[in-house]
Amino acid sequence: MAKEGADMTEETEYMIGKNVGKETENVESSCDAKEMRAVVLAGFGGLNKLRVTKKAMPEPQDGEVKIRVKACGLNFLDLMVRQGTLDNPPKPPLVPGFECSGIVESVGENTTGFEIGDRVMAFVNYNAWAEVVCTPVDFVYKMPEEMTFAEAAAFSLNFVAAYMMLFEVANLREGMSVLVHSAGGGVGQAVAQLCSTVPNVTVFGVASCFKHAAIRDSVTHLFDRNVDYIQEVKKISPEGVDIVLDCLCGENTAKGLTLLRPLGTYILYGASNMVTGETKSFFSFAKSWWQVEKVNPIKLYEENKVIAGFSLLNLLFKHGKCSLVKSVMDKLLCLYDQKKIKPVVDSLWALEEVKEAMQRIHDRGNIGKLILDVEKSPTPLMASDSTETSEAGEEEEEPEGDNDSKERMPFIH
Amino acid sequence: MAKEGADMTEETEYMIGKNVGKETENVESSCDAKEMRAVVLAGFGGLNKLRVTKKAMPEPQDGEVKIRVKACGLNFLDLMVRQGTLDNPPKPPLVPGFECSGIVESVGENTTGFEIGDRVMAFVNYNAWAEVVCTPVDFVYKMPEEMTFAEAAAFSLNFVAAYMMLFEVANLREGMSVLVHSAGGGVGQAVAQLCSTVPNVTVFGVASCFKHAAIRDSVTHLFDRNVDYIQEVKKISPEGVDIVLDCLCGENTAKGLTLLRPLGTYILYGASNMVTGETKSFFSFAKSWWQVEKVNPIKLYEENKVIAGFSLLNLLFKHGKCSLVKSVMDKLLCLYDQKKIKPVVDSLWALEEVKEAMQRIHDRGNIGKLILDVEKSPTPLMASDSTETSEAGEEEEEPEGDNDSKERMPFIH
Repeated sequence: MAKEGADMTEETEYMIGKNVGKETENVESSCDAKEMRAVVLAGFGGLNKLRVTKKAMPEPQDGEVKIRVKACGLNFLDLMVRQGTLDNPPKPPLVPGFECSGIVESVGENTTGFEIGDRVMAFVNYNAWAEVVCTPVDFVYKMPEEMTFAEAAAFSLNFVAAYMMLFEVANLREGMSVLVHSAGGGVGQAVAQLCSTVPNVTVFGVASCFKHAAIRDSVTHLFDRNVDYIQEVKKISPEGVDIVLDCLCGENTAKGLTLLRPLGTYILYGASNMVTGETKSFFSFAKSWWQVEKVNPIKLYEENKVIAGFSLLNLLFKHGKCSLVKSVMDKLLCLYDQKKIKPVVDSLWALEEVKEAMQRIHDRGNIGKLILDVEKSPTPLMASDSTETSEAGEEEEEPEGDNDSKERMPFIH
Repeated sequence: MAKEGADMTEETEYMIGKNVGKETENVESSCDAKEMRAVVLAGFGGLNKLRVTKKAMPEPQDGEVKIRVKACGLNFLDLMVRQGTLDNPPKPPLVPGFECSGIVESVGENTTGFEIGDRVMAFVNYNAWAEVVCTPVDFVYKMPEEMTFAEAAAFSLNFVAAYMMLFEVANLREGMSVLVHSAGGGVGQAVAQLCSTVPNVTVFGVASCFKHAAIRDSVTHLFDRNVDYIQEVKKISPEGVDIVLDCLCGENTAKGLTLLRPLGTYILYGASNMVTGETKSFFSFAKSWWQVEKVNPIKLYEENKVIAGFSLLNLLFKHGKCSLVKSVMDKLLCLYDQKKIKPVVDSLWALEEVKEAMQRIHDRGNIGKLILDVEKSPTPLMASDSTETSEAGEEEEEPEGDNDSKERMPFIH
């Protein structure tokens, strides 16, 4: 999409506390800037593959909108992109990120419906983690007036995915029951809120213990990730549940199917168990893939069960379902206006803090959504860590868990 | 359910043209009869395992309705029962049959909602192919006044299954497209009619060539069973279809999944390819079972697809969904009253003609539903066949196709 200089990407990592502030100033002072800051993934692997660099300013093509980005959403999918486990990723170096919010800076030819200055949220097929992005008009939606940019960046993927799974794939209705893994995550919280818009829906949530206090009110029953949730659910609802939403894959698939009531729907919408802490990610992934229990259709027939897969990214960027997504977004914005739903933001991070943000989502430390706030300055490194800077970036085999030495305090929303 | 004499079943086969007429008279002349005629399956296997015998008259237990049967539905499932390929069948000897229509003759204690003389249709967990059945009140529905008994026996299983698959499992909506195998069968015709109640639904049907003239108007596009329907559908609709209804299983599962559009639903509602013409049915079945391609949930995730199994019998008799089925039946009877749907009856057969009827459904010769008409006298054997009677019943290995010698002309509706 970039008009020029795409290959001129400067690999200058913006060092924390050095020239970041100045650069931000420069970019913001001029819309005619030829460059912008972006998070770049240099190759598939660990956190050390990420850095903030200058890239050529993109310009909108036919049917595209150019957006001055204010906030970007960070998803578990981005970890899969980084490790190279997502299906058919583009070749690195690449700018990750699938969603953002911001202000329309210009529009390409044959682009109607948006004007310069419009506050928008958008899906982007990569490239969202930057100061400026261009994306086809079909993936851009106007923000409600009272919505903040952080909320908007937390809204699109999570709520659209949750809505489509509950109402397009599974047909949630009054009196049904739903089990959601990662109940504290962005999708989990969106699922809980959307379930509360239907009368008498029981939500069973699974989440790490330390999140329970924060999210207890959002679900009907909450279980610790480390207990046998199958048994716990069956104690409360012996006949099982109507909908299982699983973003983990692996052995949870078979468990999830066991829990389904007749005519129930199991939906796999992620495979976060395939993201490991090791850099030998491809092999871990391949191993996990083959370990996933395959399903015999005749068993589904005998048990009257439904199994579905749901990938919003593929739906948008491969399967051409943007008009369906648009209609879903319209319904969601109605619910937002009626104050029935509201995105939960976990924390805001500067672009330069993307590694720490990724570590937090990897460790499942978040409650709600992690946001990259493009205008935010990085929190200064803590004193004890100031001697270490970016050298870890040169290590080829940096395990995820070894990154603590550079940890900053996130801005908890 | 039988009050007495269940073990006294007489193995006297009612010989065509001999004493059948007399017996029918006897039974009908008295409601106090201690016996009734029924089709009995002596053991799993070929057609020779079926005969019409006297059995003890059943009496309604608590919560049951006793029905004087007028007509019974014959389904592909009954062939699976006969061959012993249905999941967990009761031990033979057994009376097959899962649906019937008739007149309420008495009700058990604690049975409300029905009175003697009510015209009803009912699901039965086996035992339908008899002059009298008892079944729990939850499975009994009052017939509309203008519905014939044959229509009623053709209505329940096919329309309830078709409706639930289209609207409960798959969420059929305006503008969608549906592929149905066996478009000429009872379920296929119900599917076609129900699709026509939703605006702008495209129905792709697959059926044997000789049925095309009869059913062409019921579907949008019709393909010969022997052509590569995948290619044909893709010529018309390159992006595939929204719903695939498959009662064949086997290699059709993989094909069906290929044809699905994103967010599309493949529903397996039968496994008729597992019914073979051979008596070594268990091994054929086991072979087919293992050959069914298993589905990797991650593939569904990447492709945004849904795979479902649907077995109405299990839903009713194992999974306790009779109140849901009741609500579906109410909706269907509304559509019938509005003349939007009407069961298609292929042919009527006497109980004694059950073998010929089964052969017809095995050969996929039917257009719409085969009905056992309890009050019908068997069509006399054709002259050339009169020397052969029931001796074939003694052969252990009677291939389905060898039964022609006893063929009668069915009463085509």
